[in-house]
Amino acid sequence: MDCIFCRIAKEDSRADIVFFDKDVIVFTDINPKAPVHLLVVPKEHIQSIAHLEASHADIVAKLIYTAKSVAEKMGLSGYQLVFNVGRDGGQVVDHLHLHLLGGWKESDD
Amino acid sequence: MDCIFCRIAKEDSRADIVFFDKDVIVFTDINPKAPVHLLVVPKEHIQSIAHLEASHADIVAKLIYTAKSVAEKMGLSGYQLVFNVGRDGGQVVDHLHLHLLGGWKESDD
Repeated sequence: MDCIFCRIAKEDSRADIVFFDKDVIVFTDINPKAPVHLLVVPKEHIQSIAHLEASHADIVAKLIYTAKSVAEKMGLSGYQLVFNVGRDGGQVVDHLHLHLLGGWKESDD
Repeated sequence: MDCIFCRIAKEDSRADIVFFDKDVIVFTDINPKAPVHLLVVPKEHIQSIAHLEASHADIVAKLIYTAKSVAEKMGLSGYQLVFNVGRDGGQVVDHLHLHLLGGWKESDD
């Protein structure tokens, strides 16, 4: 199986990476829908929210906390966290990812 | 502090409730932005994603898994899960809530 997000996680494919650790990687979306548009991705290949097993609870929480932490470090005054689930939900890449969208206002507004 | 979602969680205020247990409550958004638009809400008052403490990891994961479970039961072929964070992120009610949006297509398409 050839998965672009698995390749990015293994550094076999390039991306503008803003954060990573042993579990997750955060990089910019190549088709940004907001001034700041990042993807928060588990290194483990999980297809989507609809494919989560009970054992994935920790990594799901970690995606949210990682997004929160990155948003704070970037000084975002407000942001949106979005999971698109399945083709009919707008999911394009079949590797779980959390969209972090923001930057519409400066944090000191 | 008077919080509408706390009141709904305590059944002091009415809502169209589709699921609840000891930790979470799910009800329809009164201003739906999709054919199916539900809010998945922790009973505990947490202001927003930006206000999460480390101790909230379990409830954050539970919100996601509850949304997944409800979407499955409703037969949604695809859906979106959205946290709006802060006024600049579109958050209107200062009690953490996950939007579940779907129903654009029938599940048997």
